[in-house]
Amino acid sequence: MAHVPSPSYSITIRFEIDNRVGMFAKLATAISYAEGDLGSIDIVRVEKGKIIRDITVNARDEEHEKNIVTSIKNIAGIRILRVMDRTFSAHEGGKIEIHNKVPIRDSNDLSKIYTPGVARVCMDIHENKEHLFRYTIKGNSIAVVTDGTAVLGLGNIGPEAAMPVMEGKAMIFKEFAGIDAFPIALKTTVPDEIVNTVKNISIPFGGINLEDISAPRCFEIEERLRRELDIPVIHDDQHGTAVVVLAALINVSRLLKKNIKKFRVVISGAGAAGMANANMLSLYGVKDIIVCDRKGAIYDGRRGDMNPYKKALAKKTNPRDVKGSISDALKDANVFIGLSVPNVITKDDIRKMSKEPVVFALANPEPEIAPEDAFPIARILATGRSDYPNQINNMLSFPGIFRGLLDVRAKGVNEEIKFAAAEAIAHTIKDDELHEDYIIPSGFDRKVVSSVAHAVAETARKTGLARH
Amino acid sequence: MAHVPSPSYSITIRFEIDNRVGMFAKLATAISYAEGDLGSIDIVRVEKGKIIRDITVNARDEEHEKNIVTSIKNIAGIRILRVMDRTFSAHEGGKIEIHNKVPIRDSNDLSKIYTPGVARVCMDIHENKEHLFRYTIKGNSIAVVTDGTAVLGLGNIGPEAAMPVMEGKAMIFKEFAGIDAFPIALKTTVPDEIVNTVKNISIPFGGINLEDISAPRCFEIEERLRRELDIPVIHDDQHGTAVVVLAALINVSRLLKKNIKKFRVVISGAGAAGMANANMLSLYGVKDIIVCDRKGAIYDGRRGDMNPYKKALAKKTNPRDVKGSISDALKDANVFIGLSVPNVITKDDIRKMSKEPVVFALANPEPEIAPEDAFPIARILATGRSDYPNQINNMLSFPGIFRGLLDVRAKGVNEEIKFAAAEAIAHTIKDDELHEDYIIPSGFDRKVVSSVAHAVAETARKTGLARH
Repeated sequence: MAHVPSPSYSITIRFEIDNRVGMFAKLATAISYAEGDLGSIDIVRVEKGKIIRDITVNARDEEHEKNIVTSIKNIAGIRILRVMDRTFSAHEGGKIEIHNKVPIRDSNDLSKIYTPGVARVCMDIHENKEHLFRYTIKGNSIAVVTDGTAVLGLGNIGPEAAMPVMEGKAMIFKEFAGIDAFPIALKTTVPDEIVNTVKNISIPFGGINLEDISAPRCFEIEERLRRELDIPVIHDDQHGTAVVVLAALINVSRLLKKNIKKFRVVISGAGAAGMANANMLSLYGVKDIIVCDRKGAIYDGRRGDMNPYKKALAKKTNPRDVKGSISDALKDANVFIGLSVPNVITKDDIRKMSKEPVVFALANPEPEIAPEDAFPIARILATGRSDYPNQINNMLSFPGIFRGLLDVRAKGVNEEIKFAAAEAIAHTIKDDELHEDYIIPSGFDRKVVSSVAHAVAETARKTGLARH
Repeated sequence: MAHVPSPSYSITIRFEIDNRVGMFAKLATAISYAEGDLGSIDIVRVEKGKIIRDITVNARDEEHEKNIVTSIKNIAGIRILRVMDRTFSAHEGGKIEIHNKVPIRDSNDLSKIYTPGVARVCMDIHENKEHLFRYTIKGNSIAVVTDGTAVLGLGNIGPEAAMPVMEGKAMIFKEFAGIDAFPIALKTTVPDEIVNTVKNISIPFGGINLEDISAPRCFEIEERLRRELDIPVIHDDQHGTAVVVLAALINVSRLLKKNIKKFRVVISGAGAAGMANANMLSLYGVKDIIVCDRKGAIYDGRRGDMNPYKKALAKKTNPRDVKGSISDALKDANVFIGLSVPNVITKDDIRKMSKEPVVFALANPEPEIAPEDAFPIARILATGRSDYPNQINNMLSFPGIFRGLLDVRAKGVNEEIKFAAAEAIAHTIKDDELHEDYIIPSGFDRKVVSSVAHAVAETARKTGLARH
C-alpha cells in the first residue's frame, strides 16, 4: 500500500524568515524536496527584517515529519520557532465538553435548576419514572462504553489509550445526530464486572453503545446487557458495520438486478464484525453464507479454534458444508466480505468467483486485497477507506440508529430495526444514481441520519419497542 | 416559617384577552387578589380584537398556583391558552449537553479526531498514561455520583428521582468553575457495588464528587474509594459543607477577636455533614466540640444509637464528657452548628450559651430555630437560606476545590487542602468588610472560586498530591 502525505500527519511549523527576496521559494523547495505536501500558509507578524510565518505541511508518517523538519533546519536565514502536530492539537484538553442549556445568572435561576425548585422535578420523577426521559439528559444521551481490548486496528491497548477513540465517537454522535454521548472506558475486562458496571450506571443514559470490545467476550456482554437493561444496547463493531454492509449489498442487488437472498456470500473473519454480518445476512434471508477464520471455512462439526458462537453459527450457515481454505470457499461465490486482516485473498481467488464478482475488502487501513489488484477483476469493489469509492463506513449507521431509538425512548433494539436502518441507508441512493462506484452514500451525507432515524423510530413503534 | 411567592413556583400563563379598555387591569387585580406575585408581561401577538399575552406569576406552592389559575379563569373576556411551569420548563429535555470543542466539517477533520489520526494519540497515551489528562476530557472532568439515598431534604427517593439534582450540580460546576461534570445516578445502594462501579468508570474523570449518599454508608464508600483511586474523591455533603462552616467560623473569630481553637462548639446532627464538621473542626484545632444526635450528646461509652463512626468521634470530642440533651450541651457554648432538622433548639437554649452566642442554624429550608426567634438573642446568625444574611452555601467550596485539584492533576485530597479552601473563602472578605451580617461571601461572588482554586492547587503541590 503506497503511503501518501495525509492530514492525519499534518504539522504546522512556525518560521522566522529573513525578509529577503527568494527566501520563501527556498523554503517551499526544501519542503517539496523532502516530499512534504504544502498546505496553508499564514503570516503571523512582520518584525524588523524578519517575517514570522505558520506553514502547514502534510507528511506520510512521523518519520517523514521529522525528515521534513530536518531538511528545513539547514537553510540559512530560516529559523524554526516551533513545530505543532495538528492531530495532537485537536486532542489537546479533550475534544468534548459539557454545556449548560439554561443560564445561572442569579439566585432566581438557581432556585429553579437547583434547590429548592428542583425538589418538585425530583418528586415528579419519583412518582412517574418515565419522566426521567423528559426532565433529564436521559432522553438524549448515550454511553460509549469500551474496555479497550480491541481498539481500531491497534488491538488490546487498554482502556486509557482507548479514550481518544471513544471521545471521537462521542463527537460524531453529536455532530451528525445531535446526541449527547459520554465516553466511558472501563477499568475491567471481566464480562461479569462489565455487565454489572454498565447496569449500575445506566440511569442517565437512553442507550448504550458498546465499542471496541474483543470477541467472543463482546457477544456475551451484549446479550446479557440486552436482557438486563430496558434501554437499547448495541455493540457497534458488530451491528454498526453489519447494517452498512447489508445496505451496500441491497444496493448491489438493485444494481445487478439479482435477488440478494440468492447471493453466495463468503465472509473472512469470525470476530465481532464477521459474526454479526453473517448472522444479520442469514436472518435477512441470505441462504448461502460461508464464514472463514484463520483455520478456513467454519462448518458444523469442525474441530479446533471453535467457541460456542462459532458452533451456533456453523449450524445456520455453510449449507453446502464446504471445507478448506478461504480460496476453496470462494469458488463460485458472488460476494466476498473481508472483515479480517490485510492480504488474505489474491487476484486468482477473485477469478474463481462467479461472474460479476463483488468484493468488499474492509480491513482498515490495509484491505484483504490491494484495491489496485482487485479493481480490474471485480465488478464492484468496496473498502473501509475514504480514498477509494464505496467506503463502508459505520458512521452511516450508528448516529441515525441511536437518533431514532432515542426519539421514541426505545426499550431495546431488534433485527427489524437494523434491517430498516440498512434499507433506509440503501435507498438514500435513487435507482438512477446507482453505479459501480456509488453503492453506498458518503458518511458526510447529512440526509442519511434523518432517513435512518425515521425508519428506526417507525419500526420500533411497529414492533412494540417504543415507549413514546 | 411564612411562605412567600417564590421563583421556584413560577408559572407563565398565556392569555387571550379581549382588546378592550380595562381588561388588563381586571387581570392584574385578579392575580393580586389571589396573592400571586406579578412578574414579566409580554405580548405574544395581536389578533383581530384580541391580544395574546404571556404573564409570569410567582406563587407560594403548587396549590397556590392552581388557585391563581382558577381565580383568573372566571373573568369574562379572558381565556387561558396554556399554563407553563417555569421550573419544569428549565428541566425539560435535561439541563446539560455535550459540545464538540473542534469541528468535524470534512474527512480531513475526521481523520484527525477519529481514524486514522486518533491512533497516534492512543499510542501516545499507551506509552505514557499521564497524557490521558492532557489529550482527553479527564483533565477537566469529574463525575457527580449518587445512589439517591439522601437527596436534599427529600431523603431516600431513589437514583432516578435524584438525577435532576445531579444535573443541577453539574451545571454549577460548569458555570462557576468551568468544570465538565457528568451526573451518574447509580442503580445500587450496596457499598461494595458502589465502590467497584465508581472504580470501574473512573478513567474518564479527574475527580469524583459523591453526592447525597446516606450516612453511615457514605463514610465507608468515601474512605474505600480514596484508598483505591488515584484521583480526588470528595463526598460534598460532608466536606463541602464543613469547609464553608469552617470558613464562616474563621471569620467569626476574626470579627469577635476570639481564638477559634478556644470556641466551645455544639453540633446538632451526626449524619454526613455533622460528622464531617466535627472531624474537620477537631483537626483544625478546636478542642471543645460536642456532637448531639437525636439521643443527645455523644460521649465515649454511650450505649444505644452508636456506630463505629460515632464511637471514633466520641473518643476525640466531648472532652468534658457532657451527657444529656442538646439543651444541656449548649450551656456556656460559644457556637451552635445545626446540621439536622427543624426546631431542635429554643430561645432559652441560646440564652444559656456564653455571651455573644453564635448560631448557625443550617437545616434547610426550615432551620433548627426560626431566624426571627434567634435574631434578637444571637450575636451572629447564619442559615442555609438565601433569604437571610450569612448563607452557608457549599457552592462556595466545591467548584473552587475541584478546580484547584484538576488544575494540578491531583492524586487525592487531604485536610490541609480543605483548610486552605476554608481560609481562602474566609479571606475573600477583608477585615474592614467583616460584619455580623457578612461573615461569608455570596455564592455568586465569582472571585471566591479562583481564590479557592489557587489555594487548593498551591497546597496540593506543597503536600505532594500534585502531578502537574
